[in-house]
Amino acid sequence: MSAAVREFEYIDWVRSQVKRHPRVPLGIGDDTALVRFQQPTDCLVTVDMLMEGVHFKSPPATPRQIGRKAVAVNLSDIAAMAGRPLAAVVSVALSRDKGFDFAKKLHAGIQELADEFDVAIAGGDTNSWDGPLVFSVTVLGEATERGVVRRSGAQADDWIMVTGTLGGSLAGKHLSFQPRVHEALLLHEAVDLHAMIDISDGLSADLSHILDSSGMGCGLYENRIPISDAARTAADGRSPLEHALSDGEDFELLFTVAPQDGARLLGRPPMKVQLSHIGIITAGPASCLLIASDESSRPLPRAGWVHDI
Amino acid sequence: MSAAVREFEYIDWVRSQVKRHPRVPLGIGDDTALVRFQQPTDCLVTVDMLMEGVHFKSPPATPRQIGRKAVAVNLSDIAAMAGRPLAAVVSVALSRDKGFDFAKKLHAGIQELADEFDVAIAGGDTNSWDGPLVFSVTVLGEATERGVVRRSGAQADDWIMVTGTLGGSLAGKHLSFQPRVHEALLLHEAVDLHAMIDISDGLSADLSHILDSSGMGCGLYENRIPISDAARTAADGRSPLEHALSDGEDFELLFTVAPQDGARLLGRPPMKVQLSHIGIITAGPASCLLIASDESSRPLPRAGWVHDI
Repeated sequence: MSAAVREFEYIDWVRSQVKRHPRVPLGIGDDTALVRFQQPTDCLVTVDMLMEGVHFKSPPATPRQIGRKAVAVNLSDIAAMAGRPLAAVVSVALSRDKGFDFAKKLHAGIQELADEFDVAIAGGDTNSWDGPLVFSVTVLGEATERGVVRRSGAQADDWIMVTGTLGGSLAGKHLSFQPRVHEALLLHEAVDLHAMIDISDGLSADLSHILDSSGMGCGLYENRIPISDAARTAADGRSPLEHALSDGEDFELLFTVAPQDGARLLGRPPMKVQLSHIGIITAGPASCLLIASDESSRPLPRAGWVHDI
Repeated sequence: MSAAVREFEYIDWVRSQVKRHPRVPLGIGDDTALVRFQQPTDCLVTVDMLMEGVHFKSPPATPRQIGRKAVAVNLSDIAAMAGRPLAAVVSVALSRDKGFDFAKKLHAGIQELADEFDVAIAGGDTNSWDGPLVFSVTVLGEATERGVVRRSGAQADDWIMVTGTLGGSLAGKHLSFQPRVHEALLLHEAVDLHAMIDISDGLSADLSHILDSSGMGCGLYENRIPISDAARTAADGRSPLEHALSDGEDFELLFTVAPQDGARLLGRPPMKVQLSHIGIITAGPASCLLIASDESSRPLPRAGWVHDI
C-alpha cells in the first residue's frame, strides 16, 4: 500500500481531477481561491473535521466513504440554514502508512459528493505525517432570496417536523446519507420555515438547540417519531424509540412551521423524502415533554454526544 | 495540566471570547456562520493546517504562538492576493493530555492576531482525542476595488521586488512574523502589481511559482537579496545567501511591477517595511539565473520543501 509519493505530485493529481466551476474564477494553484458572489449576500461558512479513530475507522470505512462523508456533513449544515452550497476547501493530514492510493480514493469520495451537489473544490492544504488521518472540510454557500433559516425562530404552536427516519445511523447510514440540501430548498420555497437544524447529535439534543435558541418548550408525540429500520433491529437492549431520540448522525432536517404550513406540507409534500409531524412548540421553559399515546407525559432528557477534552 | 472538561464548555468559553463583528451577522452558535458581502465580489478563501510534530513542537512553541501562527499564515495568503481578510473558521483536534488550559491559550493566540487585523472568528469545529494537536484555519477575505493580484501576471522587464529580509526564519520569526496585509494593500493602491506571492516555501521555490504561472524567466541579483540577521548568524555551514534563497516561512511579499513603478516605490516607499529590488523578469523559459556582482551567472535551483506521503 505504501507508495512514497510527493505531496506536490498528489496536489497536481487532485488539480487534474477538479472541474472548472463558473462561480470559482480561480481555484487550486494560487495563494487563495476566489468564489464569486454575484450580488450582495450572506456567505454561509461551515467547517467539520474528521479524525481517524474518533469519527471513523478505516477499515471498515473505505477512504471513498470517508471523503464523501466529510463533504456530506458540511452540506447538511448548509441545508440546515436552507442555503445553497457553492464551494469547498479541504485541508488534510495524510497518514504516510496509507500511501498515495488511499489519498486518491479519499479525494474521489470528496469529489463525488461535491460533483453531485455542484460544489467546486476550490482549494486546500495537503500535508502528510506518521499520525492518523485527519482532515477538515470548509464549505461556503449562499443564502437564497428568502434569506436563511436560523435555529432561533420557533414560535408557540408551531409544528415540529422532521425528514426521513431516525436512529441507528451508525449501522451504515452515517457513511452513505444524502445531505438534505435539495429538500431544504424545496421546503424553504414552499412555506415559511421558522427554525431549522440538521440532526447530527441526535433528535433530543438538536431539538434542545432549537428550544434554547428560540426560548421555547415543546411536546413530542412518542408514537409519531419516524423510527428507522436500523433502530428497530438494533437489538442492543435499547428500545427503537431510544435510538430514534438519542442516536447521532442522522443528518435529517428538524424544523418548525406554523400549523397551517405544516398541514400544507403533509397534504402536498414538495419532495419524495418522508415528512413527519412529531410535536408542537409551546411557550415557556426550554424543555421538552415526551407525550405517550395514552396522553401521559414525561420530561425528555437532552441526550447527545459529549466528549471530554 | 490535564483538566477533564467538556467540549461544549470549551466552545461556550470560546464564544464568550469572540467579539461581535459588523460583517458577521451570525457567528458561532448556528449551523453555519454568515459573512456579509456588501457588493458583488470575489470571496477569497484560503486554508492551512498545522500539525504538532510537523509544523511545530510545543514546547518550545507556546500554545499562544501556535494559535497566532495559524491565523498569520492564512492572512499572509490573503495579503499575497492583495485582499482584505474578513473572517476565519477554526477546526481543531485537541490533545486530551494537554487539557483545557492549553486549548484556551491556543485560542487566545488565534484571537490576538484576528483582533489585530479586524478578522472575525465566525465559527469552528472543536474535537478532542489522544493524538497530537492538529488544527486548521480557513480565512475568508474580499477583493478591493482594484481586484486581486495573481501569480500569473509577471511581464518581461518587470522588476522583482520583495518586502523585509529573508532567511533563518526557523530561528524565531516563523512564530512571530507580521503577515503583510497592510503592506500589500498599500502597494496595491500605489502601483499596478503584476504578480505577487508570499514567501512560504523559500524565495527560489516561490519565485518559480510566479515564473511557471507567468511563463517567464528571470535574473536575480545576488548582492541585492536582503539577508536577515538570522541568516547571517546561522553558522550551520550554509551561507547566508543560501539561507535567504531557500529557507521557508519568511512570509514576506514577492512581487513584480513595471520598472517605472518599481523606481517609484523605492523613491517614495508607501510603508515602513524595507523594500528591495532583487531582480528582473525576462521573456523565455521559466528558469532563473543568479547574477553575481562580477556579472557572471549560474542557474538557480528550485530549492524548497518537499515531503513524502
